[in-house]
Amino acid sequence: MPDFTTDVAIIGAGPAGLFMVFEAGFMGYKAVVLDSLPQVGGQLTALYPEKPIYDAPGHPYILAADLIKNLQQQAAPYQPTYLLHEAVTDLQELPDNTGFMLTRANGQTVQAKVVIIAGGGGLFAPRKPAGLANLPEFEASGAVSYAITHKAKFTGQTIVIAGGGDSAVDWAIELASLAQHVHVVHRRTDFRAAEASLAQLQAHVQAGQVTLHTPTEIAALHGEDGHLTSLTLTDPNGQPTTLAATALVCCFGLQPQVGALEGWDLGLERGTITVDRTTMQTRRKGLLCIGDMAAYEGKVPLILTGFAEAAVAAKTCQALIHPEKKYKVQYSTSKGVPSGQVMDKI
Amino acid sequence: MPDFTTDVAIIGAGPAGLFMVFEAGFMGYKAVVLDSLPQVGGQLTALYPEKPIYDAPGHPYILAADLIKNLQQQAAPYQPTYLLHEAVTDLQELPDNTGFMLTRANGQTVQAKVVIIAGGGGLFAPRKPAGLANLPEFEASGAVSYAITHKAKFTGQTIVIAGGGDSAVDWAIELASLAQHVHVVHRRTDFRAAEASLAQLQAHVQAGQVTLHTPTEIAALHGEDGHLTSLTLTDPNGQPTTLAATALVCCFGLQPQVGALEGWDLGLERGTITVDRTTMQTRRKGLLCIGDMAAYEGKVPLILTGFAEAAVAAKTCQALIHPEKKYKVQYSTSKGVPSGQVMDKI
Repeated sequence: MPDFTTDVAIIGAGPAGLFMVFEAGFMGYKAVVLDSLPQVGGQLTALYPEKPIYDAPGHPYILAADLIKNLQQQAAPYQPTYLLHEAVTDLQELPDNTGFMLTRANGQTVQAKVVIIAGGGGLFAPRKPAGLANLPEFEASGAVSYAITHKAKFTGQTIVIAGGGDSAVDWAIELASLAQHVHVVHRRTDFRAAEASLAQLQAHVQAGQVTLHTPTEIAALHGEDGHLTSLTLTDPNGQPTTLAATALVCCFGLQPQVGALEGWDLGLERGTITVDRTTMQTRRKGLLCIGDMAAYEGKVPLILTGFAEAAVAAKTCQALIHPEKKYKVQYSTSKGVPSGQVMDKI
Repeated sequence: MPDFTTDVAIIGAGPAGLFMVFEAGFMGYKAVVLDSLPQVGGQLTALYPEKPIYDAPGHPYILAADLIKNLQQQAAPYQPTYLLHEAVTDLQELPDNTGFMLTRANGQTVQAKVVIIAGGGGLFAPRKPAGLANLPEFEASGAVSYAITHKAKFTGQTIVIAGGGDSAVDWAIELASLAQHVHVVHRRTDFRAAEASLAQLQAHVQAGQVTLHTPTEIAALHGEDGHLTSLTLTDPNGQPTTLAATALVCCFGLQPQVGALEGWDLGLERGTITVDRTTMQTRRKGLLCIGDMAAYEGKVPLILTGFAEAAVAAKTCQALIHPEKKYKVQYSTSKGVPSGQVMDKI
């Protein structure tokens, strides 16, 4: 028995994947959305949440994070299931064209009639600090982490946050009040974060809750049995200092990974999959691809292109799931959307 | 000498045409937008301004008129020229692939390197009242009109507004304060207009500024030399009454027209033009088509599809205008848009 059964499984919770939920739902199909990242939004929330987007049609100006919020709200009436923070590791075709079984890294399974890959720039994993031989030991114990999913576990700890972007700054602010102390380690002296956030960070520094260590890098981790006790930092001249700490959170952004897609015989090449532009189908029936990962002649790889591709893919879902039905374009102004639904908690 | 010279002429100021201004502008090309209707927005503003749209990506809910406002604001940094309220009547190809010359019904000419047809459901004209033999005489004098472009000319007049939709109700409210009196003539008893507008209309009725005549139709126009003096109305039983009036505004919506496109050798068939989906080019080089009017295999005729087609067409503009340049996708988050521009007055 699969853990989840759905009409459409969408791999990738970026803008194309989220709008796919709407388009599938509008056609009457339920969706499960899978992503390896801990939150929806793909690169928009993970890499540039505070950046303005000017070419989202009908939005003269919108922050990336807000576009994602809106897309999630737009998908909500169709009550999608979001399965986040675990990569998809396996895909098996079920007999007699009945669909596919997906397996997640944690062993959970999802059975779907149609699988839509909205993989964007590909599978991403957190960038890790280099040259730390005993890193795996502290990752395994949870002393070193790359995303904060349960804030409470940091209560009373002495935390080192490494990185100089929005995430590092935001988490330093967030954890300052519940940690014993927060150290921020950054290899440059300037932080690339929102003005307002930097002002808040400085306030915590003034209040003695946060200490900045710049420009420094992490040179070594110390401790035993997975218990972190201290770090060695080095300045640009190689001068070492020791910092007592019980937890390290690395906020270095994401880097592309080789994912399970490689083994699915989709013709994945340089991060893209060639599709039939009229259906968004890959060379395997029932496996579709939309968004930046989908390639065809004349493709313009923009977010707004992924939106239009989602509408085509929804049409293909109907052709695959209900081949007896004739497709007829439907307008949201006439049909509406299910009302009285609140936004899914995810 | 043409009256206007531009990089890109866009025929049709609906959502696809407006977003085309943004996409062309983002690529560095100036645009002139032509439309036969007196305002931008195509059917969205002319037929269903108050209807909610649920499938504009990133807008869980937006009124049609507001989507148009946003698209216009999004286009504004590129300072388009809007030429409204006159149909395009002629297109001539200029020698040596240098572009095209468009002529408007009023004789004005627009020279453009590329022409993009964003014609939506086709050319529309106001629906006219039937069975009024002397209608042309009063149209010519301006006593009968189908859109209000200069409110002031109605000052002190006794105006009949015919129709039962948003436009009829909104204009009755708008003109009530400056007219001698406003009569609203509608063949049904109920009006299809926003609640708030109907409440305002009733307030004007209570105040004696507006009189409703329902259910009635216009049976005859009376007057001489283009001067309207009265109308004959009939009720559902054919019972006539006479109403003194100096102006008639018919708000019966739009109806499709045969336009000049028919003669441009574009293969127009059942209101659509087949394009090369990878470039949005019609069978004539330099003449592109996007939005509902553009046909190709797998087309899903939704507003969001037209947006993505605009991005493809912009890429084609560069290939046509600057064939020596290599296309490289650009992101608005990195490139931005011209700042300090105010929204064009139109």
